[in-house]
This record gives sequence, C-alpha cells and structure tokens, in this order.
Amino acid sequence: MPASPIRKLVPFAEAAKKRGTIVYHLNIGQPDIETPPQILDAVRHSDFKVLEYSHSAGNESYRRKLVEYYADNNINIDHNQIIVTTGGSEAILFGFMACLDAGDEVIIPEPYYANYNGFAVEADIKVVPVTSSIETGFSLPPISAFEAMITPRTKAIVLCNPNNPTGYLYSREEMEVLKEIILKHNLFLFADEAYREFCYSGEHFSAMQLSDVEDHVILMDTISKRYSACGGRIGAFITKNKEVLAAAMKFAQARLSPPSFAQILGEAAVDLPADYFEGTKAEYLKRRDILVKRLNNMPGVFCPNPGGAFYAMAKLPVEDSDVFCQWLLESFSYDGQTLMMAPASGFYSTPGLGKNEVRLAYVLNISSLEKAMDCLEQALIIYADSAKSLTDSKIMAKSNAESD
Amino acid sequence: MPASPIRKLVPFAEAAKKRGTIVYHLNIGQPDIETPPQILDAVRHSDFKVLEYSHSAGNESYRRKLVEYYADNNINIDHNQIIVTTGGSEAILFGFMACLDAGDEVIIPEPYYANYNGFAVEADIKVVPVTSSIETGFSLPPISAFEAMITPRTKAIVLCNPNNPTGYLYSREEMEVLKEIILKHNLFLFADEAYREFCYSGEHFSAMQLSDVEDHVILMDTISKRYSACGGRIGAFITKNKEVLAAAMKFAQARLSPPSFAQILGEAAVDLPADYFEGTKAEYLKRRDILVKRLNNMPGVFCPNPGGAFYAMAKLPVEDSDVFCQWLLESFSYDGQTLMMAPASGFYSTPGLGKNEVRLAYVLNISSLEKAMDCLEQALIIYADSAKSLTDSKIMAKSNAESD
Repeated sequence: MPASPIRKLVPFAEAAKKRGTIVYHLNIGQPDIETPPQILDAVRHSDFKVLEYSHSAGNESYRRKLVEYYADNNINIDHNQIIVTTGGSEAILFGFMACLDAGDEVIIPEPYYANYNGFAVEADIKVVPVTSSIETGFSLPPISAFEAMITPRTKAIVLCNPNNPTGYLYSREEMEVLKEIILKHNLFLFADEAYREFCYSGEHFSAMQLSDVEDHVILMDTISKRYSACGGRIGAFITKNKEVLAAAMKFAQARLSPPSFAQILGEAAVDLPADYFEGTKAEYLKRRDILVKRLNNMPGVFCPNPGGAFYAMAKLPVEDSDVFCQWLLESFSYDGQTLMMAPASGFYSTPGLGKNEVRLAYVLNISSLEKAMDCLEQALIIYADSAKSLTDSKIMAKSNAESD
Repeated sequence: MPASPIRKLVPFAEAAKKRGTIVYHLNIGQPDIETPPQILDAVRHSDFKVLEYSHSAGNESYRRKLVEYYADNNINIDHNQIIVTTGGSEAILFGFMACLDAGDEVIIPEPYYANYNGFAVEADIKVVPVTSSIETGFSLPPISAFEAMITPRTKAIVLCNPNNPTGYLYSREEMEVLKEIILKHNLFLFADEAYREFCYSGEHFSAMQLSDVEDHVILMDTISKRYSACGGRIGAFITKNKEVLAAAMKFAQARLSPPSFAQILGEAAVDLPADYFEGTKAEYLKRRDILVKRLNNMPGVFCPNPGGAFYAMAKLPVEDSDVFCQWLLESFSYDGQTLMMAPASGFYSTPGLGKNEVRLAYVLNISSLEKAMDCLEQALIIYADSAKSLTDSKIMAKSNAESD
C-alpha cells in the first residue's frame, strides 16, 4: 500500500510549524473558500431526535434532489441510479470492487490522482498508466497509446475531468475518442468529475452525456470541492447499468449508510442560488492566473495553463522534487515562511517520471498565494546555489579521493 | 458479494408499508433511543466557516478526548494509537486489509455479524467459522474447536463482545482462553466491542485489558450504538502494534478523512454525565426481559437470555426462517401490523445452520415491542395452520396422483 504523496510530508510540515514557521499549504485540495453558510445552517437548524442510519443508498429525498442538480448539468438520471457514498473516495472504491475481479486491469492517463493506487490495492487490481506529458499540457494521449496497453484483463479506463493533478480539461472531442475505445474493447469508463464546476477554458462535457454507452459509464462524484465541503464526506456513485448498480449496492449495504449530517447539507446545496458557482469560479480563475504567471516567470520553471479544477503541475529546475519539497519544510524559510507542495512522482506510476515536477493546489487566497510564490522564488535561488556548492564539494571530495 | 441478511428483506417491508401495514423493525440495530440532545447541540452550535477535511486519523482533539473515555473503561491507550474511522465498518475493513493478505483466513465464532462477510470479500480473505450453538446460549466454543480450524493461512480471530447477533457476553475467563490460542499460534485478535456499554449479566472485559498481547490486539469500535448515533458514521481502529497502525494509516490516508460533523458529536459525547449509560442500559434491560419472556412463552420457541448488546437469537417452530420472515411482510398482518426480523441463516457461514432461527433487535419501546410480540405469536399460529393445510393438500395431491 503506497503512502499518499499529498500527505506523506505532513510530519515535516508539523515540525516546521512547531519551529514557528508559517507553512502555505499548496499540497492539498483543501479550499479556503467558505462553505456556503446557508448549507451549514441546514445542518445547524436540523431538528431530528435520533441520528439514524440512512438508507444504504442515501436518503431518498437527497437522491431526488440530486436528480435536479444533475439535470441542470445536462445529466439525465433517475434517483434509483444514484448511490450516495462516503466521499468520492468510496465511489471509486465501489467502482473498482463492483466492476473488476482481482488481477483485472484499469488504464489511467498518468499523472493521476494518487489515491487511485490505494483503492486499486484494496480491490487487488492493477493500474496500467498511459503517459500524458507536461509539454502538451497533459492532453489525452493518442488512441494508439491506449490500444497498446489493452490486454484481456483490461476492464476499464479512469478519466478525471477536469483533471486532478494536471488541471487539464478534456474536450468533447477527446471524450468521443475515449467512447470509441470503450465500445471497441467493451470497457467501463469510470468518470471522476469532482471538479465539474471549475472549468475555465471551455464547457464541461460529462461522460454521462456520451450517447450509446449507458451500460459502460460510471460517474464518481463528490460534493467536497463543489461546495468547499470536504469534511462532509459525501459523494455519489451513479450508473445506468443495473447489474453494476446492484453489485455496488451490496458494498453499500455492508457499510450500512453514508454519513447523515452531510446528506442534509448536500440536499440544501442543490437549492443554492444559480449564480453561486460564478463567484467561486471567478475567484479560482484569478488565483490560477496569478499562480501560473508567477511560476512561468521563475527561471527554469514551466507550468502549462490548466483549463479546469484548481491544480497546476509545474516543472522545476531541481533534480528530485521529493527531496526539494522536504527541504522546503525542513531547511528553508523566507521571512519566517515556507510552502508545501506535492511532489509529482507519486502521481505517476511509471518509475522515474515526474521527478522534477510538483503539483500546486491554488486553494489559498491571493495574498497567501503571492507570499507562497515569493517563498518558492527565493527557495529555488538558494537551492540552486546549495546544489552547486554541494556538487562542487562532491567534485572536490572526489578529486581529493583520487589524489589520495 | 453476499447481500445483507439485515437489509435484504427491505423491499418487502417497503411494499407492506405502501399497503398501509405498520411494520415493527426488529431486524436492524437502529435504536429508537434519542441521541443525547447535548451532543447533537454540539454540532448545531458549531461555528466553523469551512467544512474541512480532518486529519486522516481524525481530529487530534477528538482522539485526545477518546483517551479519557477509554481510561474510564480500563483501557489505557495513547491518542496516537487511535485512528478515527467512518463507522465501526471501516475499522473492520482496515483490520482485514492491514493485517491479512489475499487468501489468508480469519476464524470467527458463528453465528456472527453478517457484514464481516462483505468486508472479507472486499479484502479477499476467507472467513472460517467455529460454530457456537443456541443450546449453550452461544458461549465460546471449546479451544479444541478453534485449534481444529487453524491452518498456516490463519492470521486472526474476530470476537464481537458482547455479541451481535447472539447477545452473548464473553467472560474474562473466556477471553483468557482466547489469549492462549492467540499467543500459541501468533494470531491477531480483532475485538469488536461496539456494545461495550450494554452488559447485563456481568462486567465487560475488553480484549485491550488482556496482558502481554499488546501487539496482537486490535480494537474495532464505534459510537453508533453507545450514543444512539448510527448515522454519524464514526468509529475507531485502535492498536498498540505500531506496524499495524502504520499500515492502517495508509488506508486512512487514501480515503482522506472520517466525517467532520460527527467527530464534533463524538468529542462532546465523552463529556456526557457519568450516569448517562445507566438510563439507556436500564431501558434495554427492561426490553430484553419482556422480549425473552414473551418469546419463551410461545409454543415451540426457544430464546436464550442474552447477557449484553440489544439482540436476541430465537429458535422458531418453522422450517425456514427466510421464508417465514418474508411471509410476515408479504402475506401476514394482525390488526394492520406485522414485524420484520433478520433470518439467522445469513449470520452462519456453515450451510444449513440457523435455518429455523431469527435475530431480534430490541431497539423499540416496550409498547411497540409488546405489539410486535403479539404479531409474532399470532403469526406462528396461522403459519403452523397454513403449513399443516399445505402439507395436507400435498398429501392429497400425492394420493390423487397415485390413484391416477
């Protein structure tokens, strides 16, 4: 079981904070955007007397409300096609467990959300990566790259759109390409659309909008990012495939029910004013623009402009971003401050890839983001110097050794 | 993946309700006891602005508070030995996944909590039952029965104490017997103590109180039953074994965090007045006494007196309790009412066992419980008559066929 690249440096961050250093957390998709007060109030003003189990598929009233939300997003489903899950995490786990047998394979464009690895280990299936690259901004790899990886054990493709960790927004055309592969090889398409609301370079096109693939598509969703409600742990597993739904329902029954409090919150959220997302989207867009500009202005740094979500991948002038990110927390501070990023190697499964890349989540307000970029800029200068002196001292040591 | 015996008859119950029949739910451990209002208020009066992820192991403040709760129950642990889980369900899953490899075996006295099967399927491990019987009130099977089942793949024993579904309360002596087996064969002991507070025939002796087995014991806990807070989905995975804790922590990180709202509730619950449990315990005891008396007064029914939890197992004068329980919902009503019970076959894994047994949860108030027992009493009379006439008509049909 691999450790999370997003959380594995946490002990170093904790140590830095104990030393009094301010740590800007760009490592994790925990937005600082306030949860809409009216949906928190829905929980605070609830007046039930017993905190009961809900239906294993979630409260019927919530599922019926979700149908309205999806209809507004051009996704037409019935409340019986929804299983409310404990976060998007559980929706992914249910998909892997319900659709694949031990030893089966799932193809995922890399870099990908690292926790897919954890759920794959739990379901005893194999993740087969198809590499997308920072040079093309992480667009969909060509159809031939997928076909090269298909074996008799291949059962599904996972697509996160807009993408975590790359921020790439897949176009309708790319989705249609995927549809062809799926139909040709009779695969499932697991569509992780956690960031549906945050698209900047175009409209979101859901896998559920593809025609004639109803039995192939499973939507894995969550309210975590949509309403800045990560701690609620409410997601959804949605499919029109009756057999898959029945299998997933058995897993849902085994764990009894999803959390009750946050279902109240999720139900209230569907009634938020229609312009709610405009505000948050505009805020993220401003942050993206500043982050990407600051990064690309740093010598040796390259950051493609992400079309959605709230992540950016950047290539840094360092040899090993794992070492660099740890160094930022352990040995660096600028004006009493430092930043935490997620080393990208953990988002790739091909060994050696992403070693000089990092993922940054632009989930902090602009002032904090600017300060974090100031830190990174300074850090890269100092790190280059120390790397140089380290190399120099190694060369010296080597020549000393040779002269011995 | 097996369907839950507790929930699989739900569609029949729903249909009965649609016909206007009142259904008394003795099938599921959903107490009607009110959640203490002060702990619901802790959530309702919370004033955070962002519903954030918590630490993957749960909020530190909550874990520190839990240390006090456990100390009050003679269980001495550190907050770093606790991972807050999404219900007891997730604690069980983490245990199976962190301690066993695919194909490994876990021994469980049967009948046992049926959802263990679901988690075993998810973890790809094998449940090996050791049969306990209704005649002995479901006491611990002899040590020889366990030893007969131990193979090189055996890695753990699961013990639910007090027991769901039997209500049996294992004594300190029985726990010491288990300890011997565990040490002799180097096994883990997974202790599911969800019903710790509800013991009527003696004091609870926790697996965590056993000496010299610190690295072997994993406590799987939940606040669901303790505070009538099933919908919160908050439990705990607790062990002093550092390696196991580190492995479980990776699974915890993959799913990010347990639900935030109910952690607030759980933290407040530790400060409930010391006499809180006396009230609920007294209420359950009254219910148990009535239920067991009513059951044993019905001709052909046998129900051993359970020492803890809020379940009773009863042997009924029927051939197949699956058929009978479905019949109760589909074809029977008394005064516009019927009852739902959990057929016991789903709690056994040895085929054929428990076919004439049911599990009853005494989670309803005494008036409802009495009415449910009135229904069962009447149902057994009518069912016996209809079974007799069915047998008669079969005999008639058979003799007619013979004379043709």
